[in-house]
Amino acid sequence: MKVNYPNPSITSNVTHNPKFQSHGMYFENALNKSNDYYRNTSKAIIYKKPTPIQIVRVDYPKRSKARIIEAYYQTPSTTDYNGIYREKYIDYEAKETHNLSFNFKHISNHQVEHLRKIDEQKGIAFVIIFFSKVNRVFLIDIKPFIELFKQGLKSIKISDLEQIGMEAKLGFVPPIDYLQAVDQLYFSHQNFDK
Amino acid sequence: MKVNYPNPSITSNVTHNPKFQSHGMYFENALNKSNDYYRNTSKAIIYKKPTPIQIVRVDYPKRSKARIIEAYYQTPSTTDYNGIYREKYIDYEAKETHNLSFNFKHISNHQVEHLRKIDEQKGIAFVIIFFSKVNRVFLIDIKPFIELFKQGLKSIKISDLEQIGMEAKLGFVPPIDYLQAVDQLYFSHQNFDK
Repeated sequence: MKVNYPNPSITSNVTHNPKFQSHGMYFENALNKSNDYYRNTSKAIIYKKPTPIQIVRVDYPKRSKARIIEAYYQTPSTTDYNGIYREKYIDYEAKETHNLSFNFKHISNHQVEHLRKIDEQKGIAFVIIFFSKVNRVFLIDIKPFIELFKQGLKSIKISDLEQIGMEAKLGFVPPIDYLQAVDQLYFSHQNFDK
Repeated sequence: MKVNYPNPSITSNVTHNPKFQSHGMYFENALNKSNDYYRNTSKAIIYKKPTPIQIVRVDYPKRSKARIIEAYYQTPSTTDYNGIYREKYIDYEAKETHNLSFNFKHISNHQVEHLRKIDEQKGIAFVIIFFSKVNRVFLIDIKPFIELFKQGLKSIKISDLEQIGMEAKLGFVPPIDYLQAVDQLYFSHQNFDK
């Protein structure tokens, strides 16, 4: 069978493990380490979902494991993270911005819709946003998030999040103690419906 | 940069979308369609997680989307499916066998351990097994599953599952109504601890 190797003439760049070159890896790593800590201490079981990949062609060399030789990144149909915390289903999308406000264009409609449905089913559903310029992390429940979006705003400012969101403490172990913010947002007396 | 194309001399087989050639696709498709149905009727929100892929090299052709040119399948660290049902976190591993008993070697220790931890956190955790020869599907909660394994048994027979598991009805829409079996296993009066 003929193998359509990529044409080197149009190859502009080939990298080894591109993940380590991308923006946002600091935040993702910090969240993953926090989730490792939460699992190791039996506080919660939360994982990042693998990135969906559309596999087009696989090579099966003799005496060697299958090698994928043509594949493409797919748009995720859900969010980045989900799991169980305090007997509740928890689901969130993690976003990073270099600006001092979070633009709604950086989250897809189907991700917002997914979180809205989780909320409808009485799960914990929020967006967690890292503002890299000021090194601050905020959680915002999906209900006020959608509310602001419906008001026609283009973005959410840090000052908005100080009012309607909850800031997560940054530290060493865990790097981002966002479940403390979840406790305050969802398990305090003011929010006893969850 | 030099691109290490796979050596055609060791290429034994190249297939287009290998998923459609593998065994177990009927069961996986039937579960996915059932989950589509449950989501569309707002009964539950349960998705199959993407298969984790280790990406080694990516080609970025000009005027074209990124193409992954070397990647490998990774062993999943968790289970196939998770989500929310009746306000509970639900998590399960799906297995298919052509035999009349399910051999424990077909499930990995870390998947069993993951389900045990979910159970510990008061989530719904089970294994769902399709016996293709007799076209029957059974659910077994992770507690009796581990119990049988600890007894030193090599496999679980259908007759065992008739006693300690719960059979799922097969039909057209949804193809496998496994949430009805979940209702009986976890939400009946006998099992009110969940």
